[in-house]
Amino acid sequence: VDTYCYQKIGVVSSCYKEKFGTPRQAGLVPIARGHIRILPPYDEDEAFRGLEGFSHIWLIWHFDGVRAQQKWQPTVRPPRLGGNRRIGVFASRSPFRPNPLGLSAVKLLGIHRAEEGLLLEIQGLDLIEGTSILDIKPYVTYADAITAESGYAKTIPESMSVSFTRQASDKVAALESAGYSDLERLISQILAQNPRPAYHKDGALYRMRVLDLEVCWEVKGGSSCVVDVLHSIY
Amino acid sequence: VDTYCYQKIGVVSSCYKEKFGTPRQAGLVPIARGHIRILPPYDEDEAFRGLEGFSHIWLIWHFDGVRAQQKWQPTVRPPRLGGNRRIGVFASRSPFRPNPLGLSAVKLLGIHRAEEGLLLEIQGLDLIEGTSILDIKPYVTYADAITAESGYAKTIPESMSVSFTRQASDKVAALESAGYSDLERLISQILAQNPRPAYHKDGALYRMRVLDLEVCWEVKGGSSCVVDVLHSIY
Repeated sequence: VDTYCYQKIGVVSSCYKEKFGTPRQAGLVPIARGHIRILPPYDEDEAFRGLEGFSHIWLIWHFDGVRAQQKWQPTVRPPRLGGNRRIGVFASRSPFRPNPLGLSAVKLLGIHRAEEGLLLEIQGLDLIEGTSILDIKPYVTYADAITAESGYAKTIPESMSVSFTRQASDKVAALESAGYSDLERLISQILAQNPRPAYHKDGALYRMRVLDLEVCWEVKGGSSCVVDVLHSIY
Repeated sequence: VDTYCYQKIGVVSSCYKEKFGTPRQAGLVPIARGHIRILPPYDEDEAFRGLEGFSHIWLIWHFDGVRAQQKWQPTVRPPRLGGNRRIGVFASRSPFRPNPLGLSAVKLLGIHRAEEGLLLEIQGLDLIEGTSILDIKPYVTYADAITAESGYAKTIPESMSVSFTRQASDKVAALESAGYSDLERLISQILAQNPRPAYHKDGALYRMRVLDLEVCWEVKGGSSCVVDVLHSIY
């Protein structure tokens, strides 16, 4: 057999609602939160017994955004190399790979049963709303944490400074009072990653969906400025 | 869609020829070596460009030894808990999980083209001969190396002392002269993991296949003694 098939065991609920703005690795936006709803028949409390002793878990997931008919290319142009240097797809964590499998180590905040089902609360995720989870494993420090040489990705990508206009700042403060806790930090951490495509020029206005909000910002002189935060119309 | 299918992109050649003796995590037998033969159409040099700058790689693979018709159980009894305590399957790295996906970080020694095809030489593997590889990703230290709290698996499992009878020692020395380099260290590192099942009693004789050899040893008083090393008849 050369084809292997797996079942979706869970589905992600995330602060990220679209690809734009979603970080490229787990842990880059430490404050980002979400949960995994475990699907039947895997949603047995027993199947997770002992997992709460682990601070972090591995998620193996499917890049749902990649179309099955999309042909893989042997090279990709990673954003962190400026989008103009080609490297092998297997030397990258690009979604556009022969088997669109994702791998993320996220913080496990807790496991609880809610009306929707059995939920794993996670933090530091790099997953879009609706992502299909195929496996969950404990992060085992002695085997998984390696002081490795990481080629062209030795350090965390340089972060961009982020500011808010007076109007945006007031809106964020009002939203925080209304229950959107840590919204300013969340937006700041997301934009610090500079999510816009590498080839874009200064001065353009961008929009991304975060939670049920739309965040509008512009990039000028190497820093981002949030100009508005609205309730999403989607 | 609730089912996702993936193609085998490579196949493992390993010093481990059977499940018995194969370590339970990558890195536990640091000297163990093997390679991945990349299968067509994925065996393009370009697809691996830049990967040699990474000292370690992630492998996502299929537990070929798990039968498809085998029903998953919500709990397992990990060997490191003595084989008598049950924990959730998702709190374990057991092969008997809803989707039998394996995850290993191994050292990348090199990439080269041989008569059989494009080969990735790896070290510290926990994979049996013939394992199907589904994805290869660079190990990215800033995202993957986490100082995590690892529940019941905080430390490397305690290792067992290993000795050789005079006869076994002579055979190993002769084999090393004949080209089996570092054979004594390899056998010692494998047996230090105490591969026999948790419920076994002292005094029994064990056999495992390593490379094209058969290693025979006994366990007494908490230590292992290699009694013979033979050319395998398989």
